[in-house]
Amino acid sequence: MLDSCLRPELAAEITLQPVRRHNVDAAIFFSDIVVPLRLAGVDVDIVPGVGPVLGEAITSLEQIERLEALSLTDDSLAPIRDAIALIVAELGERGDGSTPLIGFAGAPFTLAAYMVEGKPSRDHLGARGMMVGQPELWDRLMAWCAKVTGQFLRAQVLAGASATQLFDSWAGSLSLEAYERHVAPASAAVFAHVADLGAEGPDGTAFAVPRIHFGTGTGHLLPAMYAAGATAMGVDYRTPLDEANRILGGSVPLQGNIDPAYLTAPWEILEAHVRDVVARGRTAPGHVVNLGHGVPPTTDPAVLTRMVELIHSL
Amino acid sequence: MLDSCLRPELAAEITLQPVRRHNVDAAIFFSDIVVPLRLAGVDVDIVPGVGPVLGEAITSLEQIERLEALSLTDDSLAPIRDAIALIVAELGERGDGSTPLIGFAGAPFTLAAYMVEGKPSRDHLGARGMMVGQPELWDRLMAWCAKVTGQFLRAQVLAGASATQLFDSWAGSLSLEAYERHVAPASAAVFAHVADLGAEGPDGTAFAVPRIHFGTGTGHLLPAMYAAGATAMGVDYRTPLDEANRILGGSVPLQGNIDPAYLTAPWEILEAHVRDVVARGRTAPGHVVNLGHGVPPTTDPAVLTRMVELIHSL
Repeated sequence: MLDSCLRPELAAEITLQPVRRHNVDAAIFFSDIVVPLRLAGVDVDIVPGVGPVLGEAITSLEQIERLEALSLTDDSLAPIRDAIALIVAELGERGDGSTPLIGFAGAPFTLAAYMVEGKPSRDHLGARGMMVGQPELWDRLMAWCAKVTGQFLRAQVLAGASATQLFDSWAGSLSLEAYERHVAPASAAVFAHVADLGAEGPDGTAFAVPRIHFGTGTGHLLPAMYAAGATAMGVDYRTPLDEANRILGGSVPLQGNIDPAYLTAPWEILEAHVRDVVARGRTAPGHVVNLGHGVPPTTDPAVLTRMVELIHSL
Repeated sequence: MLDSCLRPELAAEITLQPVRRHNVDAAIFFSDIVVPLRLAGVDVDIVPGVGPVLGEAITSLEQIERLEALSLTDDSLAPIRDAIALIVAELGERGDGSTPLIGFAGAPFTLAAYMVEGKPSRDHLGARGMMVGQPELWDRLMAWCAKVTGQFLRAQVLAGASATQLFDSWAGSLSLEAYERHVAPASAAVFAHVADLGAEGPDGTAFAVPRIHFGTGTGHLLPAMYAAGATAMGVDYRTPLDEANRILGGSVPLQGNIDPAYLTAPWEILEAHVRDVVARGRTAPGHVVNLGHGVPPTTDPAVLTRMVELIHSL
């Protein structure tokens, strides 16, 4: 998995397949939350059926000091830049050349949750324990995570991605207070790495690179995650988009939130769900239609194609 | 694990240990969410490091029809009754005889999440997919889960438990709409199995057996879970108790919500957190102080004892 992320031709191919097959309106850079760790030289791999596993869990000051000496360099970022260049070149040849590439990075908390535990965990008690029990150590770890993730995301935009998505998979395990105090500053630092960057639309219009912020189980954190420097909010399937729009004050474009559980349902049921999501999304000032979480591996690809056709017809 | 739950002396011993060691004010019956399955004759075991694993995932009408022929009997419930009798006898000998036993059962959705997947899963896509794609099949499965869970909980009260807790570990993976439509009716059916039962306080006062409803990541579901027939709400560490009290209209006793992540923090930090939880709990019409999720296995038991002493002093 990690090796695929770091082979430009392969990462480009995997990024482009859903665009070719399902005719979606944007590509999302194929990568993984721990790619910046690997690029910085941290011993990490993705174990099939388990997830990211580090050579050693990062729990001590000594380990964090050793991390702080690591950084992403022009050389280490080369596979990312090369993959983006390949993707953007092919996307530019499609139709009116308007298919954008959305860059991808994992947020510092989710990255740190893997690092402190050394592997996936259900409640992220390692990270949450360090956060409240050793806040100075935690802040140093988060600052490092923010730096490499920010460099990783900035490199994607400089190489041609025209939007960014920061993916905080495990933020939903936090209370609002814990999120604001121990996590939001680092996610804000990531967004600051790309906030000065612009992109250009197919008609030549320049715009600031959109910054999408996504988590799961984060209905209670939407305003705080937006305040961290996002310009659009991803919303998982748990929060209806009209409610998300209300929570966010009616001024924030949304992304999501088709429930992946419907992908195995009879077509009429899936269709009704998609129509409902799109209708609720219309209450917001913008809606990037998308699933509210990842595509389950057992999904019939033909269903995805048909769903995209439906959405294009609405 | 399952065998320990079904050996009365052992289940009683494990239930009583925290009461003896930490001097808490109530015991919680040591059991597991899948115990009613095993008692009904379903092939299930708890695999160390994995969790509940069934001989076969329950996904077809034929399998659900075979389930529907199964039920809990006086004989199959004997180990539960015997364990409760042992526990209540020892609790009755403590001090003023006022230490109650809280009965325990897993809620139908969490049970069904294991059954449809055949094992633990992150997003419960199997169960959530059946719920939306095959709602009639789902309703039959949930009705069966509600029946055995209700019988299991009722047997505990009849044997001497003086309160009940329904534990819906995975309900937080649901939207409010999915919860109300596909899950709440079955949880209400469980509570209906014990709603007519009474218990007696140490002073001889009779009262209806309290019904506590608990989930994690369920801040958005608190009113719906209460409306399912609970008389008190468990609140995990994500939702502060003053906010939970406000969401619930100020009339519902609460349980929880000390964050287990603080158990490894320096004492002063844990103490400040416990004092904050207790102070916020005072805004509610009642507060059973407890952790907002399970005790991590690495917890130093001396910290738990000291925390109980602190709470008794407040």
